[in-house]
Amino acid sequence: MAIQQKLSLMIPGPTPVPEKVLQALSKHPIGHRSKEFQELVESTTINLQWLHQTQNDVLTITGSGTAAMEAGIISSLSKGDKVICGENGKFGERWVKVAKEFGLEVIKIVSEWGTPLNPEEFKKILEEDQQKEIKAVILTHSETSTGVINDLETISSYIQEHNTALSIVDCVTSLGACNVPVDEWKLDIVASGSQKGYMIPPGLSFVAMSQKAWEAAEKSNLPKFYLNLKSYRKSLLSNSNPYTPSVNLIFALDESLKMMREEGLNNIFFRHNKHKLAMSNAVKSLNLKLFADEKHLSPSITAIKTGEIDAEEFRKTIKNKFDILLAGGQDHLKGKIFRVGHLGYINDRDILTVISAISKTLLDLGKVTAQEAGEAILVASRYLDKN
Amino acid sequence: MAIQQKLSLMIPGPTPVPEKVLQALSKHPIGHRSKEFQELVESTTINLQWLHQTQNDVLTITGSGTAAMEAGIISSLSKGDKVICGENGKFGERWVKVAKEFGLEVIKIVSEWGTPLNPEEFKKILEEDQQKEIKAVILTHSETSTGVINDLETISSYIQEHNTALSIVDCVTSLGACNVPVDEWKLDIVASGSQKGYMIPPGLSFVAMSQKAWEAAEKSNLPKFYLNLKSYRKSLLSNSNPYTPSVNLIFALDESLKMMREEGLNNIFFRHNKHKLAMSNAVKSLNLKLFADEKHLSPSITAIKTGEIDAEEFRKTIKNKFDILLAGGQDHLKGKIFRVGHLGYINDRDILTVISAISKTLLDLGKVTAQEAGEAILVASRYLDKN
Repeated sequence: MAIQQKLSLMIPGPTPVPEKVLQALSKHPIGHRSKEFQELVESTTINLQWLHQTQNDVLTITGSGTAAMEAGIISSLSKGDKVICGENGKFGERWVKVAKEFGLEVIKIVSEWGTPLNPEEFKKILEEDQQKEIKAVILTHSETSTGVINDLETISSYIQEHNTALSIVDCVTSLGACNVPVDEWKLDIVASGSQKGYMIPPGLSFVAMSQKAWEAAEKSNLPKFYLNLKSYRKSLLSNSNPYTPSVNLIFALDESLKMMREEGLNNIFFRHNKHKLAMSNAVKSLNLKLFADEKHLSPSITAIKTGEIDAEEFRKTIKNKFDILLAGGQDHLKGKIFRVGHLGYINDRDILTVISAISKTLLDLGKVTAQEAGEAILVASRYLDKN
Repeated sequence: MAIQQKLSLMIPGPTPVPEKVLQALSKHPIGHRSKEFQELVESTTINLQWLHQTQNDVLTITGSGTAAMEAGIISSLSKGDKVICGENGKFGERWVKVAKEFGLEVIKIVSEWGTPLNPEEFKKILEEDQQKEIKAVILTHSETSTGVINDLETISSYIQEHNTALSIVDCVTSLGACNVPVDEWKLDIVASGSQKGYMIPPGLSFVAMSQKAWEAAEKSNLPKFYLNLKSYRKSLLSNSNPYTPSVNLIFALDESLKMMREEGLNNIFFRHNKHKLAMSNAVKSLNLKLFADEKHLSPSITAIKTGEIDAEEFRKTIKNKFDILLAGGQDHLKGKIFRVGHLGYINDRDILTVISAISKTLLDLGKVTAQEAGEAILVASRYLDKN
């Protein structure tokens, strides 16, 4: 067993955190009603808008990504509202549960785990809704459970044609990893979480709200208090928070957003894309199969089938030998797949390392030859070497 | 203006954080579904039960104290339930708002800000409720806005006599500062927050739930998802969390709870009590008046009237000259009082320092003599010197 004190996090969150950000995190807290803190809220808000490519309000909540999605749903909708929920993975399923819990009428558009949602199904149902009874379309952009990315741009364009429904989108593992131009795609409600592309520990989440979403919020009658986004908007007018915010995570956020601005959106997206390509092509050359439809691979997570090998055992071996943490399959996929997270603070070396660790483990199991292991490195390099 | 880089936080949260805890906070995150993290959840849960003096479940939520109180209320009650809300400050008012938002029928027991709730009023209404229609009594133990502590022990005993209603108590600024023996007082739902007696930054909150509270939870029909405590209980069975928890704040919590155990409950309570006595008696000897009824002073916050002096100006002077942050009055008390927080990681020196800073500022304003300033130190020392 290797020294277990040099953990490499290759899961889809928490993701690795830069030293600078950890240092910011460990500063002595300050008062959350102080001028200094207001300045931080102002600067992080401006940078959050930059990251979301939007002029919309972007609100920061102390809570997980689930809290942010729930906040978006319950702040904008009313009891009995008809909504479409796209469901092709664990998170899609979760938003169906939230919608039902709050008494919404759910029309499900389902696609098998590992396959993308079909935008044309959204189009059809939205077009048929001449009475404009559908108040929202709720879906997940990058399905963390399967490594599939849904075609949000096209689905959003159909929502625009409907002209009434809001889009409420879980962008938890897409924002900060690939292009999510909130204004250009006219997304109404966009939720994300700190422990992903943001490169900070879990504990904060974010909701971008369009003008149309705020108009719906005025009419929303679902009961809510802590997750009522109207309170956050009101406080944000004075760069403040309705309830005591996670001050130290805001220190970290401020630092990480500055690092992201330094790198630049296009570079961030390019990096995630090449890591996705390196990862997915390398594992294929190791005789492993991708779980997700190859035309719809998430930039952030690669889900890999292990065939006859027990995926949990495989993961455990890599953890014990190399102190690299990979994610397992969720629900019915447990033992059948493992997932490599490659979002946030990940560099080329991390990708090469995880591929080498997978190769070495397959070599030990007699599942690949040295030739194939070497090929995997070459295949990955074809993408990693691009800048 | 003094160097503004050596902030002393003397507000009722965020409170100062020990270096050891900040170091724990800034560790690289680990996977929240890992064995290592489960061990942390197990150890923090045991220590949380110790702190609450209870065998009940104590759940950890990523969110503020308000999230914890709301979770307690909506996880245990049903639409139309009749509840008593005690209201003698800003937080009491907040729980009335939460209760009304979720369609509960609220009977208010009000006491003027600065005075305690009258337990006999609770007794009377509970005794009159022969039909046992009252399902909960919601109140604040230590009112952070006024520096008053309510007589929770007596009120809880009346709730016991009623034998049906649950107690749902905001112990945000009492837990970890004074005695809150959850089992002995038979408290059903107790909420608290990390940035107070816990000595860690904001971002986590806690809810202790009795068996009776869980029984009510089984029948609760208020809509909820992220704040549904049943999900947290289910996850806790495997030392886990239903949603990604604030991993680094859990590192910090683990460290701070160990420090608290080392100090011991009685020492912690003794320290807070003597700081309360030193603070309140010293300010009286400086010709300032306490805002709160002197027989019901919170162990954690001293609220001080400034008479003709503008309290906001006074606070600003102390911040600029000494880099000590005091809290202002909230709502109608703004400018009329300031509040000194003395909870969590506060030692005798901090108390002496803030008294000296107040004395010096009053000296400059010509409001006290040197003799009186010296007396204030002597008065404070009478309490601080006790061990």
